[in-house]
Amino acid sequence: MRKTTQLRNLITSKELEVIMEAHNALSAKIVEEAGFKGIWASGLSISAAMGVRDNNEASWTQILEVLEFMSDATSIPILLDGDTGYGNFNNARRLVKKLEQRQIAGVCIEDKLFPKTNSFIRGETQPLASIDEFCGKIRAMKDTQTDDDFVVVARVEAFIAGWGLREALRRAEAYRQAGADAILIHSKRADFEEIEAFMKEWGGRHPVVIVPTKYYRTPTARFREAGISMAIWANHNLRAAIAAMQQITSRLYREETLLHAESCVAPLEEVFRLQGAEELAEAERKYLPSGLNGDRP
Amino acid sequence: MRKTTQLRNLITSKELEVIMEAHNALSAKIVEEAGFKGIWASGLSISAAMGVRDNNEASWTQILEVLEFMSDATSIPILLDGDTGYGNFNNARRLVKKLEQRQIAGVCIEDKLFPKTNSFIRGETQPLASIDEFCGKIRAMKDTQTDDDFVVVARVEAFIAGWGLREALRRAEAYRQAGADAILIHSKRADFEEIEAFMKEWGGRHPVVIVPTKYYRTPTARFREAGISMAIWANHNLRAAIAAMQQITSRLYREETLLHAESCVAPLEEVFRLQGAEELAEAERKYLPSGLNGDRP
Amino acid sequence: MRKTTQLRNLITSKELEVIMEAHNALSAKIVEEAGFKGIWASGLSISAAMGVRDNNEASWTQILEVLEFMSDATSIPILLDGDTGYGNFNNARRLVKKLEQRQIAGVCIEDKLFPKTNSFIRGETQPLASIDEFCGKIRAMKDTQTDDDFVVVARVEAFIAGWGLREALRRAEAYRQAGADAILIHSKRADFEEIEAFMKEWGGRHPVVIVPTKYYRTPTARFREAGISMAIWANHNLRAAIAAMQQITSRLYREETLLHAESCVAPLEEVFRLQGAEELAEAERKYLPSGLNGDRP
Amino acid sequence: MRKTTQLRNLITSKELEVIMEAHNALSAKIVEEAGFKGIWASGLSISAAMGVRDNNEASWTQILEVLEFMSDATSIPILLDGDTGYGNFNNARRLVKKLEQRQIAGVCIEDKLFPKTNSFIRGETQPLASIDEFCGKIRAMKDTQTDDDFVVVARVEAFIAGWGLREALRRAEAYRQAGADAILIHSKRADFEEIEAFMKEWGGRHPVVIVPTKYYRTPTARFREAGISMAIWANHNLRAAIAAMQQITSRLYREETLLHAESCVAPLEEVFRLQGAEELAEAERKYLPSGLNGDRP
Repeated sequence: MRKTTQLRNLITSKELEVIMEAHNALSAKIVEEAGFKGIWASGLSISAAMGVRDNNEASWTQILEVLEFMSDATSIPILLDGDTGYGNFNNARRLVKKLEQRQIAGVCIEDKLFPKTNSFIRGETQPLASIDEFCGKIRAMKDTQTDDDFVVVARVEAFIAGWGLREALRRAEAYRQAGADAILIHSKRADFEEIEAFMKEWGGRHPVVIVPTKYYRTPTARFREAGISMAIWANHNLRAAIAAMQQITSRLYREETLLHAESCVAPLEEVFRLQGAEELAEAERKYLPSGLNGDRP
Repeated sequence: MRKTTQLRNLITSKELEVIMEAHNALSAKIVEEAGFKGIWASGLSISAAMGVRDNNEASWTQILEVLEFMSDATSIPILLDGDTGYGNFNNARRLVKKLEQRQIAGVCIEDKLFPKTNSFIRGETQPLASIDEFCGKIRAMKDTQTDDDFVVVARVEAFIAGWGLREALRRAEAYRQAGADAILIHSKRADFEEIEAFMKEWGGRHPVVIVPTKYYRTPTARFREAGISMAIWANHNLRAAIAAMQQITSRLYREETLLHAESCVAPLEEVFRLQGAEELAEAERKYLPSGLNGDRP
Repeated sequence: MRKTTQLRNLITSKELEVIMEAHNALSAKIVEEAGFKGIWASGLSISAAMGVRDNNEASWTQILEVLEFMSDATSIPILLDGDTGYGNFNNARRLVKKLEQRQIAGVCIEDKLFPKTNSFIRGETQPLASIDEFCGKIRAMKDTQTDDDFVVVARVEAFIAGWGLREALRRAEAYRQAGADAILIHSKRADFEEIEAFMKEWGGRHPVVIVPTKYYRTPTARFREAGISMAIWANHNLRAAIAAMQQITSRLYREETLLHAESCVAPLEEVFRLQGAEELAEAERKYLPSGLNGDRP
Repeated sequence: MRKTTQLRNLITSKELEVIMEAHNALSAKIVEEAGFKGIWASGLSISAAMGVRDNNEASWTQILEVLEFMSDATSIPILLDGDTGYGNFNNARRLVKKLEQRQIAGVCIEDKLFPKTNSFIRGETQPLASIDEFCGKIRAMKDTQTDDDFVVVARVEAFIAGWGLREALRRAEAYRQAGADAILIHSKRADFEEIEAFMKEWGGRHPVVIVPTKYYRTPTARFREAGISMAIWANHNLRAAIAAMQQITSRLYREETLLHAESCVAPLEEVFRLQGAEELAEAERKYLPSGLNGDRP
């Protein structure tokens, strides 16, 4: 099944589906191997891995290159956290074209201005896009896609910016009418209440996606009860990697020996396995003449 | 102090120095923050993070882009694991030029053929470069660098390929005479013996670098006694990250809730800190007019 | 019709077909607008436009990026001059995957060693690949393509290297059997004789492609008589652009005024037309709310 | 002399200096060989060569890659036509860092909004940046540069947008005070009058740069009299190349033979010369062992 169709099925299924963050091809593969049905290509995580900020410091084509590696390494769909679409409607529709070429299944855009700032950093001071401008962007993206199942998710930042429920609903409905395949309603609160209020008013009009980074204490059962279509574990691979790398690095610096580290890290063979070394060994047997061995002394 | 000078000082110091692997800007920054004085930009780790094999599947400019992010995010020197220099002497000298532009302090090249294979995968079947060809490459690189302190390390794969001590010494000496700033003598044995034998014959002629991935049980004191200049913890950030990501991913898949995960991962604020969010907040206060807040409803 | 199918049809048609060089998206579009049915993405031209040599100084992904722009700007098929496939069979099959993603219709690889040298520079001193190695590369590429019509052309450099007709035929036949869709038989002679001799012996076994850069005086009728399937005008856009740019630049330097230059260059409106400015103007009317006009004083 | 110092000298010299457009390394080299003292890396030309529009369709890192090739191929300074700096003050200061690494001598930014539109396309409908925002951007860029001689030119689009002389002067003065090293005053009129009026009021306060694409009939003497510091022939290499490529392509399509084309294009040897083939031949003699000739039959 095409990756786009897989993602569309996840979005439209009656069940709560969960996808998980990856920030490079390696973590993407790990997400797939764990059993997840989809991958969230997090803007925060990808920028953090690059050592830059989640403010469009990396160019959109640098992001695209990471995505291409991620897509090549996996067979489950990737939903890109596409910020604002990296500019206006024209940049956003160009992005759709490039994503389709790389078999990225969908993209989520948010109603902020380029360059964006992470929603959890002074969210209430952040400007929002005008509804008209953002709807034009959604329409341009939907008109551009050549694969009917490519997914465009519209992210509503009204709660982040402190504009309230009424505005959140107004925007969600406008984006739905503009053609978005799902609404991502974002919240920075530690509880689920404003989203729950939203879901009540929304009344199941269209699939809703959430990112429970801040309200992680909310039991998943409540997401199901509220009628959420998809939840995203949005940055946990990155954060697990950071903790582990800080730990091993400190330890190796302190102990000055690899002796005790070996048991805390994945075996070398696991690295080779994740890279697909075995397939290459077979291919060499198939395609490479033997005896290409350079100068023996 | 220039990064090249820092690296040269590490290579030529009387002490055993240790540098540590990074595979992206984030891990590079973690290495620096832990106290290490240098970073090993591992070909294995960078390729694994990209989901490709350590066989020059990623292009050299894709590697270069990762390096640029790594260099921008840190102030300690980076030594690139530069495979064969990605081709012949001409590709290798072009690489030097590009590395210098990005403030990479040095590069290690190995005496194999392009495209290379990781030394721990069927090493004994791998072809080696001819000594003449490899020495020409070293000379071309040294003639190209514009910063006198840029470091070229020549990696001897004779033990890996099973060609023995005599050949290892012959190659090391040839590379030294060709202008290499240090010799990396590589081994896939679980003990330190063949390198110890090498060091005995070598007699301190020139700095020697080692990668104790396979002989990790050897106490660091023995490296000092043998007169090693630099040891490289060559892939442990990657392997720690793999283990941690596999663990968190499996757990989140199984538990279907973020609740228990939060304490196992770095806090969100730590991600922002590593990205340098604070500097941007200050810069916005300095350079951005207030009130750029889009359309309020 | 898919671009791959278009190219396959050109290769297998009974007529002599001609395709023309381009080195960027602009020249590719000009080739299409002139009526040509296919585009030759010349390694020489692309490297020259980049200011580097035709010796794989640019990385294969840098070439790929140029190709992506070329492909996006045109609807006729592009045949890439793919040098040696940029490494061994594994690099070459990876290339096929990347080309397919970018809708490049086919690739021509030559039986030399990486990094290659342009065939017209000391051709007789250039090493050739072993037949076995090159056939393995062809098989790997054909096994990798997912679109049946993707075209792999095998270029025989035996005449260039001075190895004679017998070797040229031996190689061509081996490559045909390995699965190549056509043979490109290359010559640096000012006349058509060695290729004519080849065609006589070849006896129409498989489509043959030629590059008459050096034997440009040969009437095209003789290519038809000899049974050539495709001829490539391989670098004439680049060379026309060089002559024109040298002329206008010298003139502007000398005259110190734009006055007389205007009539020698394409009108500014023609630049906008080639870029597709009109489509964007329409799209803005469709997708962009009016009145986004910044701060009026 | 550093390229930045060269450019600064051009900007601050008492004479009218002229620099010329290039859109890739090849045209850049041609500009240098003709005798010009500087290169204008035109946003219009570079985007047109890529087959995209002058609306930030190519990412800023794709532009950067073209610039790197241009800089590597030449020894005279390059002034980048840097649009709006590709976003806000933070993107612009990041750009400065990347330009310095690639030895680009300076950048011109214009007071429009990202994504920009070419000034000659419906200029009067285009929004302008607020003065405060643009001045913050200039200050951020100047604070970022590490080479004192790096040049930031501020381009005033007030005439393009139809906001009149008073606003043009107000902006120019604000940008001067914010730290810009020169003012580029742009006009789409066919005559020199509005700029002449500007220069009169400006009174030599700071260096002024012009782009006489539309008022090409104005004698250069009038630029001198008005006290212009630098004039830019901004797109003539591209437009000459377009005309020449359209001509040769049509002709080859029509004539179906290379016979008559040879005399209209640069000789093949000129391509090799521009690429620096000779230097590589020498380097091969110096660094490459003889006899690397593959399998002779």
